[in-house]
Amino acid sequence: MRNDSRQPNELRDVTITTNVNKHAEGSVLIQFGDTKVICTASVEERVPPFMKGQGKGWVTAEYSMLPRATHARNQREANRGKLSGRTMEIQRLIGRALRSVVNLQALGERTITLDCDVIQADGGTRTTSITGAFVALCLAVEHIAKSHPFQVYPINDYLASVSVGIIEGTPMLDLNYVEDSSAKVDMNVVMTGSGKFVEVQGTGEEAPFSRTELQELLDLAEHGIQQLIAAQKQALGAASEHIRGE
Amino acid sequence: MRNDSRQPNELRDVTITTNVNKHAEGSVLIQFGDTKVICTASVEERVPPFMKGQGKGWVTAEYSMLPRATHARNQREANRGKLSGRTMEIQRLIGRALRSVVNLQALGERTITLDCDVIQADGGTRTTSITGAFVALCLAVEHIAKSHPFQVYPINDYLASVSVGIIEGTPMLDLNYVEDSSAKVDMNVVMTGSGKFVEVQGTGEEAPFSRTELQELLDLAEHGIQQLIAAQKQALGAASEHIRGE
Amino acid sequence: MRNDSRQPNELRDVTITTNVNKHAEGSVLIQFGDTKVICTASVEERVPPFMKGQGKGWVTAEYSMLPRATHARNQREANRGKLSGRTMEIQRLIGRALRSVVNLQALGERTITLDCDVIQADGGTRTTSITGAFVALCLAVEHIAKSHPFQVYPINDYLASVSVGIIEGTPMLDLNYVEDSSAKVDMNVVMTGSGKFVEVQGTGEEAPFSRTELQELLDLAEHGIQQLIAAQKQALGAASEHIRGE
Amino acid sequence: MRNDSRQPNELRDVTITTNVNKHAEGSVLIQFGDTKVICTASVEERVPPFMKGQGKGWVTAEYSMLPRATHARNQREANRGKLSGRTMEIQRLIGRALRSVVNLQALGERTITLDCDVIQADGGTRTTSITGAFVALCLAVEHIAKSHPFQVYPINDYLASVSVGIIEGTPMLDLNYVEDSSAKVDMNVVMTGSGKFVEVQGTGEEAPFSRTELQELLDLAEHGIQQLIAAQKQALGAASEHIRGE
Amino acid sequence: MRNDSRQPNELRDVTITTNVNKHAEGSVLIQFGDTKVICTASVEERVPPFMKGQGKGWVTAEYSMLPRATHARNQREANRGKLSGRTMEIQRLIGRALRSVVNLQALGERTITLDCDVIQADGGTRTTSITGAFVALCLAVEHIAKSHPFQVYPINDYLASVSVGIIEGTPMLDLNYVEDSSAKVDMNVVMTGSGKFVEVQGTGEEAPFSRTELQELLDLAEHGIQQLIAAQKQALGAASEHIRGE
Amino acid sequence: MRNDSRQPNELRDVTITTNVNKHAEGSVLIQFGDTKVICTASVEERVPPFMKGQGKGWVTAEYSMLPRATHARNQREANRGKLSGRTMEIQRLIGRALRSVVNLQALGERTITLDCDVIQADGGTRTTSITGAFVALCLAVEHIAKSHPFQVYPINDYLASVSVGIIEGTPMLDLNYVEDSSAKVDMNVVMTGSGKFVEVQGTGEEAPFSRTELQELLDLAEHGIQQLIAAQKQALGAASEHIRGE
Repeated sequence: MRNDSRQPNELRDVTITTNVNKHAEGSVLIQFGDTKVICTASVEERVPPFMKGQGKGWVTAEYSMLPRATHARNQREANRGKLSGRTMEIQRLIGRALRSVVNLQALGERTITLDCDVIQADGGTRTTSITGAFVALCLAVEHIAKSHPFQVYPINDYLASVSVGIIEGTPMLDLNYVEDSSAKVDMNVVMTGSGKFVEVQGTGEEAPFSRTELQELLDLAEHGIQQLIAAQKQALGAASEHIRGE
Repeated sequence: MRNDSRQPNELRDVTITTNVNKHAEGSVLIQFGDTKVICTASVEERVPPFMKGQGKGWVTAEYSMLPRATHARNQREANRGKLSGRTMEIQRLIGRALRSVVNLQALGERTITLDCDVIQADGGTRTTSITGAFVALCLAVEHIAKSHPFQVYPINDYLASVSVGIIEGTPMLDLNYVEDSSAKVDMNVVMTGSGKFVEVQGTGEEAPFSRTELQELLDLAEHGIQQLIAAQKQALGAASEHIRGE
Repeated sequence: MRNDSRQPNELRDVTITTNVNKHAEGSVLIQFGDTKVICTASVEERVPPFMKGQGKGWVTAEYSMLPRATHARNQREANRGKLSGRTMEIQRLIGRALRSVVNLQALGERTITLDCDVIQADGGTRTTSITGAFVALCLAVEHIAKSHPFQVYPINDYLASVSVGIIEGTPMLDLNYVEDSSAKVDMNVVMTGSGKFVEVQGTGEEAPFSRTELQELLDLAEHGIQQLIAAQKQALGAASEHIRGE
Repeated sequence: MRNDSRQPNELRDVTITTNVNKHAEGSVLIQFGDTKVICTASVEERVPPFMKGQGKGWVTAEYSMLPRATHARNQREANRGKLSGRTMEIQRLIGRALRSVVNLQALGERTITLDCDVIQADGGTRTTSITGAFVALCLAVEHIAKSHPFQVYPINDYLASVSVGIIEGTPMLDLNYVEDSSAKVDMNVVMTGSGKFVEVQGTGEEAPFSRTELQELLDLAEHGIQQLIAAQKQALGAASEHIRGE
Repeated sequence: MRNDSRQPNELRDVTITTNVNKHAEGSVLIQFGDTKVICTASVEERVPPFMKGQGKGWVTAEYSMLPRATHARNQREANRGKLSGRTMEIQRLIGRALRSVVNLQALGERTITLDCDVIQADGGTRTTSITGAFVALCLAVEHIAKSHPFQVYPINDYLASVSVGIIEGTPMLDLNYVEDSSAKVDMNVVMTGSGKFVEVQGTGEEAPFSRTELQELLDLAEHGIQQLIAAQKQALGAASEHIRGE
Repeated sequence: MRNDSRQPNELRDVTITTNVNKHAEGSVLIQFGDTKVICTASVEERVPPFMKGQGKGWVTAEYSMLPRATHARNQREANRGKLSGRTMEIQRLIGRALRSVVNLQALGERTITLDCDVIQADGGTRTTSITGAFVALCLAVEHIAKSHPFQVYPINDYLASVSVGIIEGTPMLDLNYVEDSSAKVDMNVVMTGSGKFVEVQGTGEEAPFSRTELQELLDLAEHGIQQLIAAQKQALGAASEHIRGE
């Protein structure tokens, strides 16, 4: 039995509240249990220097945790004067994952920046961020579409992410902080609405894992991601209409 | 008439929601109209190097804005690698103001750090932060008191802050962003529950002000701060009992 | 009696020596007792990016202390790799105060940078800097005027600054370092030649202050600033002719 | 046919030259085709602060590329004043992978730092680094063992890494730079001598991949890693005797 | 007798291997005994901002040591976030020395950057770097000449460098690390093929030196540099033909 | 004829004013013509970590220029967040030169930091700094001696520095800024009172120089340094008594 009474293949309660920020072109507050992340999407009518003149857009992400999002307070990265390796790794992952379902050509010469700020952390902040950022991204694309209709809709498919891991020999879905700390194998999976993998990042620092264990973890992840995509569709409502997906 | 239909001497709607963070010893979400700040108080059983061996505690504050708290997205200070002058000025002000009502001797060798993170900005983020941080501080002190009762209660008085300014010749209370941008004189006032001044910071960069104007602004501020302290008391409920104040 | 035998309402000896730097367009060495600051004004025929294309000029300031300006040696900020909050707060204040008496439109698309470098510190370095920087600024404007006469003279009024504080219950003018360390209330005031306030920054971190005390401090400051402006006029000599002021 | 005439399931020429540095406790020059990395292992008889007092050792890694390791010259990270996200991600991966086969308890209170400096890059620098760093680590452990024999040998198993990817629909092993640039799916796999996974990092930024494709890639990686471990054993010679593995 | 059995006026074994990097326009691995440096020359068809519009080229250098180039491991400068004074001093010296024999006008609007990365250090890394970088520079100039023949050849003369010092009263040539540590006087000399001085940097921190001692050191340096230039010519082979020199 | 009417072998007017700072243990304002440097010596009763437990003291130096010390204003290094290579090179030189005449054993476990701040620059700021810093150092040693008499006096000899260079074929002494800019060969020499060399740093970036030219430059430097040491003795007065020197 898990410490929060879930079944091994059960997600935590997921809630997605849209339009929580009056300035941003898209915004959500997403919760996976006690993990809470504010995701905002900001649209700028220009692209970064390395993308100039290609007629394409860009989607990027930044990730941060409030100092007291965690059990003990963390020093702000702005005070240390640099981002930690963990932060950079996570925000590179979020951006890469989102771009996998965006048609940058169709987006046009615009940048959409997804800011994922963790208000409270209880495990799975990167998977929660990806899942929420996708919704904020869709809202921002809808916002652009109102004034500048797209010929080809720039979102190709749904996208969500969940963590899985092996705890005392049992594969489990959507680990909370206590579980994450005791898992010997830890994997983050990002999938599309059509059931393809975008990212598979499994690590067995404390105990290497077999091909069979890998299969079980991927099954669990697929099961969870389908439910997350259903929650995204509900949160998006009419804004989900133009997304092809499955 | 003000752009949000308020009278010149009228505050915006103020709401203070306590215990919004499951990890922090004290926490609030405070709103002055559309300005929203999460304030958390973190207690550590040690003091910074410069306070060691004095038998006294320390209270300090940090301030930050989420990138999309503002109308246009701001670059993160963690990315720029340093805090702006504005941020440092504000967090020094918040810390100094809070310490004015804390008996550091009575607090004992502990540090309480107040993190004020602006989720959405619409003017007055520093005054909102001080007013909210005071409540989070009180909750943290109550939290300590449960396990380590104080002989002398370390909070001496209530503390709140509001902005005032002169717009087209009229002194006004609690400026929102649009008003702040058009004010020729701008003043932030921090006062105690007993009606004394802790900070008076008035600036007339665009139009120097007379002694008479200064008096009118201080009257308005005092009027607003009394109401803010009433709101703090209500939010604190029983936790406000041990604060002497007036 | 004060530790340097002054009356409570008495300034320290003030001397302003002009043209102490052969390269700068304007320069002074200003002394408030043992506090000595070199202020240079540097003129550049361009404005910072955020001011471009507005047909207006810009006035800004930087502040620093030599490592051994103080009793114990301080680490250089260049070695720490960043400016302290105190330095940023002071240089923002100096720049803002000076701009309050400059007609940026009349100045034309130029930047004047005031560098205030504290050679020796004994309290009141920010007020000494503002008072000296104003004189250096006037000299630089005169320097420009020789080759490019102004249609409207860009200096609107005189500007000086002094500190005041309450020590053992007595309000006192122009605190030296020892006094500053023991003052419970500390206030810096910047005023124009016509007697209006540009900045009022009062802080009662160790003891909040009443409205009556505030009035007494402002009276003292006004008394001191009138004398400082007289010293500025004498230092400027003929260069003071074009300044309207009172 | 691949651009260097290899079969899809064929590694590049791999050479591992040991003891290339007279100062380091362990060192190798490893080449995967034109990718050349110097790996040195440095032993220090202390552990980092977060590991103190646990009676365990630590293994960590740093990664860097010489500026002209690549086709066009790259700016040094020391000049930019910070590590890129890519560098941090890679060096975190190398350290984590190596630790998975080290018994930190058995190692004792020592730190072994693996420096992986890419002298020339042609794709696969992170997998080359892991494969070479494992050999340098073994040499350093043997070096310690000469003067301080271990009761339990601290290396549990062999460890090597290879990249795989899908190019124009064909899964391929050990991508060089040209192949890496055109791969739609890219995966780095780290495995032990006993055939378990330590890291699986697959990304389909440009084209999500199916479960079937994932299986094919893992098969290829396993095939390549077995050959790399054979090359490691040959390079280590007698120094490989104490490693359990398989 | 020296610790490596050399005569006082004897160089260590010098080897210069050319074209060790497949990407760089010029490259060498140079060894002075156990000191090994990779020097690459990178050509860019542009000049830095301060050289723009002058119709001239630029030659600059960067220097670094791998962390374990030295007996004990050194922290990477990229991790400390800044270059040490020693590194900056050395790379400024290398660049300045190389420019003394380059006709920047004849080079045309190009930048050649010499990267000197010390793979293993045993004293004399800066003199080894200068001597090797000169060869890499010549190779890069030849590389340019193949596609863009020069009207005036941009290399004026040969250039090499060696260290000399006084150890227990005896002047010695080309100090290794152990000798360098015990030398009371230490001098680095850079000379041209025609026997003129480009840099003379002598320091007697532990024991000031007389004019006579200075003469003896310069004699030794001249003797060594002639041999180094002979080694450069041999390494360059046909590529040395266009260099005037002597 | 030189642009300031001096003979080739003539120093600029040199003035050394002692005790210009009321806080520092030793201080001077030194002028070589229009080059003005404030040198302060600060004594701390501890040594840096790398010197701990050796029973010896340490002498170090820092160098900086006020932003408007130069003809055009320079950006502060504190704003750029790091020291330039030039600054580091100069302050390393000053420290090394001063230590050459200090008996660190005799000094005891103390650090003396020499801060050389250039108030106005007109060429030769590093030689002026060394010459002035030596005097400030002597004053600080005398200051220590008053309360803690030394058994062995820690200053071994006098020390001064001057620049020399070749302009249009003529060797010249003590170059001002205009001369420095047009010199093809530039040399800084540091010598002791007993006529020995501590540092010889000659550079012929624009024109290599012969052995004969080197001799002429050293003669000129020796001639100038003897006069500078005479000026130091006069400035030190009675404080010069304990220095052995010549």
